Amino acid sequence: MAIDDAPRSVSLAASRLHRPARVLEQLSERVRAEESRFDAVPRLERRIADLLGKPDAAMFPSGTMAQQVAMRIHADRRGIRTIAFHPQCHLEVHEHKGYMIVHGLAGLPVGDRYSLIQLADLEAVREPVAALLLELPQRDIGGQLPEWEDLVAQVDWTREHGVASHMDGARLWEAQPYYRRTHAEIAALFDSVYVSLYKGLLGISGAVLAGDTEFIEHARVWRDRLGGTVHSAWPMALAGERGLDDLLPRMPEFLLRARALAGVLGGIPGVQVVPEPPQTPLFHVHLSASPDRVLDHARLLAERTGIRLFGMIRRTANPLTCSFEISVTEQLDDVTDTEIRDFVGELMLAAG
Amino acid sequence: MAIDDAPRSVSLAASRLHRPARVLEQLSERVRAEESRFDAVPRLERRIADLLGKPDAAMFPSGTMAQQVAMRIHADRRGIRTIAFHPQCHLEVHEHKGYMIVHGLAGLPVGDRYSLIQLADLEAVREPVAALLLELPQRDIGGQLPEWEDLVAQVDWTREHGVASHMDGARLWEAQPYYRRTHAEIAALFDSVYVSLYKGLLGISGAVLAGDTEFIEHARVWRDRLGGTVHSAWPMALAGERGLDDLLPRMPEFLLRARALAGVLGGIPGVQVVPEPPQTPLFHVHLSASPDRVLDHARLLAERTGIRLFGMIRRTANPLTCSFEISVTEQLDDVTDTEIRDFVGELMLAAG
Repeated sequence: MAIDDAPRSVSLAASRLHRPARVLEQLSERVRAEESRFDAVPRLERRIADLLGKPDAAMFPSGTMAQQVAMRIHADRRGIRTIAFHPQCHLEVHEHKGYMIVHGLAGLPVGDRYSLIQLADLEAVREPVAALLLELPQRDIGGQLPEWEDLVAQVDWTREHGVASHMDGARLWEAQPYYRRTHAEIAALFDSVYVSLYKGLLGISGAVLAGDTEFIEHARVWRDRLGGTVHSAWPMALAGERGLDDLLPRMPEFLLRARALAGVLGGIPGVQVVPEPPQTPLFHVHLSASPDRVLDHARLLAERTGIRLFGMIRRTANPLTCSFEISVTEQLDDVTDTEIRDFVGELMLAAG
Repeated sequence: MAIDDAPRSVSLAASRLHRPARVLEQLSERVRAEESRFDAVPRLERRIADLLGKPDAAMFPSGTMAQQVAMRIHADRRGIRTIAFHPQCHLEVHEHKGYMIVHGLAGLPVGDRYSLIQLADLEAVREPVAALLLELPQRDIGGQLPEWEDLVAQVDWTREHGVASHMDGARLWEAQPYYRRTHAEIAALFDSVYVSLYKGLLGISGAVLAGDTEFIEHARVWRDRLGGTVHSAWPMALAGERGLDDLLPRMPEFLLRARALAGVLGGIPGVQVVPEPPQTPLFHVHLSASPDRVLDHARLLAERTGIRLFGMIRRTANPLTCSFEISVTEQLDDVTDTEIRDFVGELMLAAG
C-alpha cells in the first residue's frame, strides 16, 4: 500500500524547482519559434515512430488508455480474450480492471510478484494467449531489466506461440542505455510499444503508442471512441519534444549518477538499494524504518533543506520496513549526492 | 458530410490571431501568480460545480468520455440499458458508437433530425429509458434552444418516468443569456451536466462533468478506468479558468452581436440565417451555392483579407446549397460586421 502525499506519479521532485513555470517557459520558446504549432502532435507522433523504428504512432492522453487499446486490438486480431502480464502490471493494479470491464479481456498473471518474468514462467502457460505485455524496466521492483538474451528468448516464445508482444515502455527512455542498443533495436522485438511523455521526459502528460500502420489506424478509432482524442494537445506534444531534445541525450549520464548515488546510499546502515547496481536512472531505496516515521521526518527535513526527495513511501508486510523511489534526472541537477546522502542519513538516524 | 480543412471543432477562427501563443501568454500570467498551480484542476472543478449549483464536478479529457460515463452511470443505477437522445446527438454521430461498444448501451433517437426534441416525441416513447440527453443549444441545427416552458415540460416528463436527465452543455455558456436565468437555475433541471472548457471558453481542451457527490465519485472511477485521469491537466484547467473570467461575462454581448450580424448577413441574396434571430452567439449561415466553390473562394478571400471565417462547410442533399457556422467571440473583436458582410457578399457573388 502506498501513502500518497503528492500526485500519484510524482515520486521524486526537488522542491527548489517550480515545475509549471519552468515547463511554460520552455513551451513559450517553442510556440514562438518559426515552425507551425498546430502540427505539434503529428510531428511528435512521427518523431517517436521513427525513433522506435515503427511505421506509425499515435498520441494518447494516458498510458492507461494506450495500453488497454493495444491489448484490445491484439485480442480482437486473434479472437483470443486472454492477455498475459506481470502480477504488478499497471493494467492489473492501477486501472480499476479496465481491460476486463471496458474491453472484456481476461488477465493472466505470469511469474513472481517480486521478480522479473522468466522464460520458465511463459513455458508454464497452458492456455491460448493473445498478447504478452513486458514492462521495461519493471518499475515496481526497482526498475529491473532482463538481460538482452533473456528478453530475446521471451519474445521468441511469443513468436513461436502466435502471441503478440507488447512493450510497456513507460520508462523505455531510462532503460535504453543499459542495453547499449538503439531504441529502435529494442522496440523491434515488439509488435507494439507504449512510451510516456512525462516520466523520464518530464513533460506535462500523455503517451504515445507505436506499431504497424493498420494497428495504429485501428488504435486511433479506439482513441476517438473512448474519448481520448482531445481537441488540442499541443502543450503535451511540445513538452514531450522538449524532453526528447534535452533529456533523452542525458539518460546515460543519469544512469551513471544513479549508480554512484546508489553506492553512496547503500553504505548507510539500514539502507538497501534495489537493484544493486541500478540498471536505469530509477532505483528503489529500502529502509529498515517505520514508514510513518520516515514520512514525518522527510517532511521536517524537506522544510529545513528545501529537498523533497520523494512523494510516496511504499509499505511492506513488515511494519518496520518501507521503501521509496529515486529517479535521477535534471530535477536533481542542483542537488549534490552528498546532500542526498546526508538527507537519507539523517532520515535513518531519526526514523530508523 | 463535412469538409474538414481545419481541426474538427475549430469552426471559426480569424487568422489574425495566433492562438497557441496567446493562450500561452495568458497561462504564463496565471502560472506566475501567487496562488498554487498544482491545485488548478480541483479549483476549476469546485468553481464549475458551484457555478452549476451541483455538489461536485470532475474534469475529463473530453466531452466524449464525460458523457459516455454519465450515461453509463445513469444506466447502471437503473438497470436499464436504453438511453434517449436527439438523432444528431454527439454520442450517436461522432463517437464510433462508444456508448454501445464500450458501455453496452442502446441508443434510442427521439424527434426529428432537423428540429428540437418536442414533448410529443418523448410521450411517444414506449420502452423503459435510463436517461434522456438534451443538448443545449442543439448545435447541429444552428444552436437552437427550446423555450424555457418547453424545457421544463420535457424534464418533468423524465421525472414522471424515472428517467435521468442529462444536459449536453458543451455550449451552455452560450445558451445561458437566452434564458435570462443563472447557470445554476438551468442546471437544476438536470441530474448531470457536461460543459466544455474549449468551445465558448476558448481554452485548450477538456470537459467538466457535474452532478451529485456519489455520481461524480463514481465518474472518477470510470475516468481512471478509461485512461482519462491524466498525470497533469493544469494547462487545460488554467485555460478554462481564463475563459470563465474573461469570456463568460461577455456572452450577453456576444449574443447581441450575433443577432446584429445575422441581420446584416440575412440581407445578402442567397443567404439564410438559422435560427433567425440567433438564440446564442452561435448560428448557421446557409448559402445557395456549391460547397466546393464556396470553399475555394473562401480560401482566396482569406488570403486577401486575413479573415478565416470558417474551417468547415456542411453539405446538404442539394449539391447547390451548403452552410457554415459562426460563433461570435473575442476572436472576432478585431473584425467588423462590415468586413464579415463584405466577405460573405463577395463569397456569394463569386460562388453563388
